[in-house]
Amino acid sequence: MSFVPERTTALHACRLGLDTHQEHTIYLRADSPVCHSEGFTALSRVLVRSQHHHLIATVNIVTGDLLQPGCVGFSESAWHHLKLKAQTEVWLSHPRPVQSISYIRGKVYGKSFTPEQLHEIIADIVAGRYADVHLAAFITACSGDNMDINEVIALTRAMVDSGNSIDWNQPMVVDKHCVGGLPGNRTTPIVVPILCAAGLTMPKTSSRAITSPAGTADTMETLTVVSLSLKDMRRVVKKEGGCLAWGGSVRLSPSDDLLIQVERALDIDSEGQLIASVLSKKIAAGATHVLIDIPVGPTAKVRSDQAARQLADSFQAVAETLGLELSVLLTDGSQPVGRGIGPALEARDILQVLQNDPAMPNDLFQRAAAVAGAMLEMAQIAQPGEGEQHASEILRSGQAWQKFQAICQAQGGLKTPPVAPYRYEYLVNGGGKVLQFDNRLLAKVAKLAGAPASPASGVDLHCKVGDRLSKHQPLLTLHAESPGELNYAVEFLEDHPEMIELERYEN
Amino acid sequence: MSFVPERTTALHACRLGLDTHQEHTIYLRADSPVCHSEGFTALSRVLVRSQHHHLIATVNIVTGDLLQPGCVGFSESAWHHLKLKAQTEVWLSHPRPVQSISYIRGKVYGKSFTPEQLHEIIADIVAGRYADVHLAAFITACSGDNMDINEVIALTRAMVDSGNSIDWNQPMVVDKHCVGGLPGNRTTPIVVPILCAAGLTMPKTSSRAITSPAGTADTMETLTVVSLSLKDMRRVVKKEGGCLAWGGSVRLSPSDDLLIQVERALDIDSEGQLIASVLSKKIAAGATHVLIDIPVGPTAKVRSDQAARQLADSFQAVAETLGLELSVLLTDGSQPVGRGIGPALEARDILQVLQNDPAMPNDLFQRAAAVAGAMLEMAQIAQPGEGEQHASEILRSGQAWQKFQAICQAQGGLKTPPVAPYRYEYLVNGGGKVLQFDNRLLAKVAKLAGAPASPASGVDLHCKVGDRLSKHQPLLTLHAESPGELNYAVEFLEDHPEMIELERYEN
Repeated sequence: MSFVPERTTALHACRLGLDTHQEHTIYLRADSPVCHSEGFTALSRVLVRSQHHHLIATVNIVTGDLLQPGCVGFSESAWHHLKLKAQTEVWLSHPRPVQSISYIRGKVYGKSFTPEQLHEIIADIVAGRYADVHLAAFITACSGDNMDINEVIALTRAMVDSGNSIDWNQPMVVDKHCVGGLPGNRTTPIVVPILCAAGLTMPKTSSRAITSPAGTADTMETLTVVSLSLKDMRRVVKKEGGCLAWGGSVRLSPSDDLLIQVERALDIDSEGQLIASVLSKKIAAGATHVLIDIPVGPTAKVRSDQAARQLADSFQAVAETLGLELSVLLTDGSQPVGRGIGPALEARDILQVLQNDPAMPNDLFQRAAAVAGAMLEMAQIAQPGEGEQHASEILRSGQAWQKFQAICQAQGGLKTPPVAPYRYEYLVNGGGKVLQFDNRLLAKVAKLAGAPASPASGVDLHCKVGDRLSKHQPLLTLHAESPGELNYAVEFLEDHPEMIELERYEN
Repeated sequence: MSFVPERTTALHACRLGLDTHQEHTIYLRADSPVCHSEGFTALSRVLVRSQHHHLIATVNIVTGDLLQPGCVGFSESAWHHLKLKAQTEVWLSHPRPVQSISYIRGKVYGKSFTPEQLHEIIADIVAGRYADVHLAAFITACSGDNMDINEVIALTRAMVDSGNSIDWNQPMVVDKHCVGGLPGNRTTPIVVPILCAAGLTMPKTSSRAITSPAGTADTMETLTVVSLSLKDMRRVVKKEGGCLAWGGSVRLSPSDDLLIQVERALDIDSEGQLIASVLSKKIAAGATHVLIDIPVGPTAKVRSDQAARQLADSFQAVAETLGLELSVLLTDGSQPVGRGIGPALEARDILQVLQNDPAMPNDLFQRAAAVAGAMLEMAQIAQPGEGEQHASEILRSGQAWQKFQAICQAQGGLKTPPVAPYRYEYLVNGGGKVLQFDNRLLAKVAKLAGAPASPASGVDLHCKVGDRLSKHQPLLTLHAESPGELNYAVEFLEDHPEMIELERYEN
């Protein structure tokens, strides 16, 4: 890339301390000569160069006296990316058009992406050349079932190539992923210590929540340090055989972390991006054997066996092409797992299972054993059909709990999850038998209560399908870290009694 | 819509003088208690209420000392929308989820929009409830040919309903639209005075450029005032029978103005949104008879007769349902019209045609006469087949030029278009015969030279298809308002000699 010879005068960099998230933003005085001569207006994209670095940023215009004449303001991300110091000289010019954006236009007009195009798109995203609106267009163009299997394979490869990859120098490295949509289904922190106790290598990296009330990284963060450097991860895995880290801090598949921010704002995701996101992270993390847990239920992410089998086939096809051993486990997705929905409440359930607490939610124990069992079978540690039993024994013996503590210790120490100061107990109006839950509404009320940003917040469920409740028995308790959030969640809950469907007793 | 009872403490409004364009943005201190208690982070959407107004805004976090504790900063659009004064008290809370965004998710998963859903989406867009990323997702989901005719009809209705409509109390009000893609095809400023001179009512509102180097409003703005209030428009039309105004200032179809900003950033448009955008503006502007000019050519927006006829059918179907009389004229879109590409250069061509200047570009004269002629026939002022002749006579007689001057006078006076200080003459390398132009590349080089933001900039073409050029004869001249822009356009031009294809003479 050759640059346009520069004829504009230098401006002096000024750190405004504005956090615009990933979108690099600069602030220009409306009366700045460069605004006029280069025709920059609000939302213009501009090439910013310092002596040694450059980036493309979005322009915001300053009409007040926030900036001295001759100065240009920077958002935090742009400031750090350019490694600026106060008053450093920078030059602004028109960026070359980002060619790969035109591929998105082609896609919405019915063309397929070529592997080269996806490679270029992902490289441009990682280099910060896409504004948020471009990321939104890319996500939308790929969403639904708009990508074929070759596009998904190419997207996965492109995402792997865009970041770091880890080689563990092991013949077998296991990993798992659950296709979300089932509140409270937090089996990973139980599965990892079971498998590590069984001698397998499982360097687990997890994501934060995209559209759910908690991701595994959010939950683990209430228990220990999850932002590990690659060096720390290697140390923990060498010592304990596994870890429970946040994937974002080691820059595995960094494009995914950028896309997730906008996916979250849009609340749109896609099968193709889901598969590419999951498998690119697994491959980059050095996994050789991967289990995909797909919960199926009328209000889970995957709603029918047919859709689940189709998704499983796509996962298998992509994994096979990329040389990954992959098994799929279809699980019951009809109701939440465990009792807690939200980072700290889920952490409490996990500790109960690991500690063999008699009060533990049995369904979480059983699902973790089923997932770990399937992986023991895939790794040929257990005979077919005997994996779940084997996993249950490791849990009951306390070996998994010991391993969990050792892993947390190696990551930076075991913490006690926070407890929410504001609560609201939601009572059943008349008595009745619990018929079904709406997972989506439950997830939504947990998010309105503040999860995952406020880790102690969420929903604590007191019933399961089939339970018979008498009048004024509590159905659930809302937990929140602020009265405002509690209040808002309560209002939503009371507006949506269909969240928990009861068969009323005859009076 | 009932609000959540407010429990957060008030913050004091502070005007930061930051122009973020249409996206309402607020700035919160990272250490602000409301950030923590409500869980607001960068890019969070937040409901902001003052005593009498409210809006949904995007959060940026301030980590420096830009804001005093207890203060919240506002972008210009948010400040004006809330009608704030310095230190006014405002309250922040979580907005209700914008329900209509979930319809976009449904659309990308293959569902059609219902009329009610489109109505709600457009109403939410006009009310400022969509962040730019949501607009980008909506545009992308509707782009290509992803909307069926019923969705286009419903979108058109929704866009009409979202803004002002004008009733001219006339049995016939004529209007026209050209489906762009053909640089320099600026017939409107010639057609309007022809038709008004013939006694028709033509209150023309035009848009600014979306992805092209000039829109009619950009070109007219170099000749007169185009930002007319509705009252001014009525006065001008009453006096002269027509006007040449910018549509945005009278808030006809305001959702379109918001969508166009993001469409421009994405460089993506769609047949459905094109039709809805065009016809909603016509209906809102009170038109009863509309002519659609569709240039067809290999590098025009519409590339084949088949595509043009399909688009024409869609226009007809939507117009018929909405009670609009509509004719379609397919025109030659193989090369640019006139000589200038860019606001002021096109204005010069227009003046030459209106003034019967012997140096005028004949193709522009002829196209304007053809379009005006088709409209005279539609209005039954000319017999079928005689319209173009009739229109040419009005032009040649000087009546159109007189009417044009009268209209400009009524709008605020006739101005002389600006002239660019920086120029570059692009010479033919060896001699040759001009075979064809790439309209897209010509438009791009005009935009790189600064059009439409720098109105004097653009391309001045010195040849047409079929012209025989000798060695070192000029093909075109680039015009720019700054050396940086000129420089960049020159580089692009020299990288793309295929912009003008020549058949070389044998040497």
